[in-house]
Amino acid sequence: MKDFNYYAPTEVVFGENSEEQVACLVSKYGGHRVLVHYGGKSAIKSGLLEKICGLLADAGIKYFKLGGVVPNPRLSLVHEGIALCRREGIDFILAIGGGSVIDSSKAIAYGVPYDGEVWDFYLGKAEPECCLPVASVLTIPAAGSEMSEASVITNEDGGVKLGYSNDMSRPKFAIMNPRRTFTLPPYQTAAGVTDMMMHTMERYFTHDDDMTLTDAIAESVLRTMKDCVFAVLKNPEDYRNRAQIMWGGSVAHNGLTGCGISDDWATHQLEHELSGMFDVTHGAGLAVIWPSWARYVYKENVSRFVRFAVNVMDVPNDFTDPEGTALKGIEATERFFRSIGMPTTIHELIGREITDSEIKEMVRKCSRGGSQSTGCFKVLHAADMEAIYNMAR
Amino acid sequence: MKDFNYYAPTEVVFGENSEEQVACLVSKYGGHRVLVHYGGKSAIKSGLLEKICGLLADAGIKYFKLGGVVPNPRLSLVHEGIALCRREGIDFILAIGGGSVIDSSKAIAYGVPYDGEVWDFYLGKAEPECCLPVASVLTIPAAGSEMSEASVITNEDGGVKLGYSNDMSRPKFAIMNPRRTFTLPPYQTAAGVTDMMMHTMERYFTHDDDMTLTDAIAESVLRTMKDCVFAVLKNPEDYRNRAQIMWGGSVAHNGLTGCGISDDWATHQLEHELSGMFDVTHGAGLAVIWPSWARYVYKENVSRFVRFAVNVMDVPNDFTDPEGTALKGIEATERFFRSIGMPTTIHELIGREITDSEIKEMVRKCSRGGSQSTGCFKVLHAADMEAIYNMAR
Repeated sequence: MKDFNYYAPTEVVFGENSEEQVACLVSKYGGHRVLVHYGGKSAIKSGLLEKICGLLADAGIKYFKLGGVVPNPRLSLVHEGIALCRREGIDFILAIGGGSVIDSSKAIAYGVPYDGEVWDFYLGKAEPECCLPVASVLTIPAAGSEMSEASVITNEDGGVKLGYSNDMSRPKFAIMNPRRTFTLPPYQTAAGVTDMMMHTMERYFTHDDDMTLTDAIAESVLRTMKDCVFAVLKNPEDYRNRAQIMWGGSVAHNGLTGCGISDDWATHQLEHELSGMFDVTHGAGLAVIWPSWARYVYKENVSRFVRFAVNVMDVPNDFTDPEGTALKGIEATERFFRSIGMPTTIHELIGREITDSEIKEMVRKCSRGGSQSTGCFKVLHAADMEAIYNMAR
Repeated sequence: MKDFNYYAPTEVVFGENSEEQVACLVSKYGGHRVLVHYGGKSAIKSGLLEKICGLLADAGIKYFKLGGVVPNPRLSLVHEGIALCRREGIDFILAIGGGSVIDSSKAIAYGVPYDGEVWDFYLGKAEPECCLPVASVLTIPAAGSEMSEASVITNEDGGVKLGYSNDMSRPKFAIMNPRRTFTLPPYQTAAGVTDMMMHTMERYFTHDDDMTLTDAIAESVLRTMKDCVFAVLKNPEDYRNRAQIMWGGSVAHNGLTGCGISDDWATHQLEHELSGMFDVTHGAGLAVIWPSWARYVYKENVSRFVRFAVNVMDVPNDFTDPEGTALKGIEATERFFRSIGMPTTIHELIGREITDSEIKEMVRKCSRGGSQSTGCFKVLHAADMEAIYNMAR
């Protein structure tokens, strides 16, 4: 097993009454002048934005609103946020929304105290020395950004989507009220569950077979998410199962499911090019890529895929045919994605045939012009990426 | 399900090379003048104490040593530590050892900036406003104190053992090298695993049946600990399984296994009187109390005991006889404790028959003279406590 660090300092305040604590928590973590960062109409329509701002105002905390975050959050809005924070002397960023809003907040938080261009961090050209404190009122369980050190930003100039991770951006607190997720549409609910399952699976598919506690916890998360999603698709106001999914999204990506193992992330890398180019929902893109990735790589460690098939996907173990069992696990996963309304081909995802030149362009970006590989379970070079994209057409 | 807070900010640095980072971590969390707090001969004999002190010295960090912590750590040494910290202007406490050393460190950390008597916090007479930062180099996986907010101190004046919990005492970092646990004797290894399983079971036995993710994670911890302990009792230098146990002890008590449920803690409360009076190993005392507690309370929620029997103890589910299945799960647990060398009666634990008056004295303390109940799965009053102690004789 590998040495590991586990660091998830975010204070999670979970439940129906959690929002009431927002002003107290902002003060506790040093916020005096707060950027309230959000997306679009749902935060306004639901009354959540107004409620949070009211609670801050009642506590005498000055706040400044910046909305307009879109899925695959844009660098231009990050720049706007940085300028606003500097102008108003903002010392705390409160994200109201899901992963896109939190990721945008993290990027702003890095950028405010930095003299150069914030995109440099995402390009790997610089490292931040500090950042503003970030926290969230979560409304979309999916990305796990509410406890993670990761953020992903899209530079509209060229449609380049890049991630950057640094522990200093781990949010100070996360307020999670499952009731706020009742209005999530089925597609977004399912894409969110796919994303959190993939955060677990990117770590689960490893050659380090000796961290049994991590494996057991990962399987717990995967089985729970798989079971709960059907209940909430049937009844969107099922508090109990909305709560499992909301908490599951955080557990899946706060580091716990990766302790002591080498993680992969090839599916995420391949998907980032898809959503970077076609502006599709990240979770749906993952459902498209994973089955092809799995079929392309499973022979690297058949027993791990058998374990997944049996322990997570409830495939009966055919002891005489491990490869057959492994493949049945992949098929069962694909069927599961379809059953919750996810696409499993690029055609379904983008609504038309993808062209060869578009695939080549994605490969070029994902491999940084052929110079960079991705993945760990099987190291993928440009030709491997192209093969997987073609399998997923 | 219940609203919950989850807050486990401790930075875990886990693995064979983790100790090398001690000075860097102390500096990162603001330590300049460090109390190195430890127990007895094992930290010296193993060379760990010398190594840690050497690393601090090399980094120019001033340190002061205070050893002598014993199991069921004493208030008198806490007082000594507080005086030393004040005298030397110490700003950071580094525990080298297990739960007793970490708990003693937490008590010192509360006491240094407090004008009154630190025991007041444990008596519930006062609340601390701040405390010194605490961290640990863990050598005994058991208590989970390395990530928890809890500490338990014994006041020799009357043999009173009391716990106090406060998030501000959660350790800043925990260095965990499984290799340091190779020399733990079998009895201490088994008592440690019993303790960490009980930290999970105190939460698992609840009437809140709706937090499926928490239940699944709890069962993962319990099954992993149950399986790994046999491997390390057979081969004390089994790194892989020592690692599962070491990490399992932290996961069991950092709050994760209690998210969204009501916890019980009656077994711990009843045991504290045993180890307070007879100075026995806490984990061994838990193995003695739990089976009697379980038989006394299981009818409050038979289905939960059936779930435990089937999902954790591998008892076949007799669907026609839930009570029988529940009882078989309790028997299997008792057999498990015996198989790893734990006592399951007070007689075995203290080496002689306990007297009626000793039981009455424990009941008097545990119920604070009859005025206080304990437990949540079934609320236990003085008569219930006496019945359980008698069942465990």
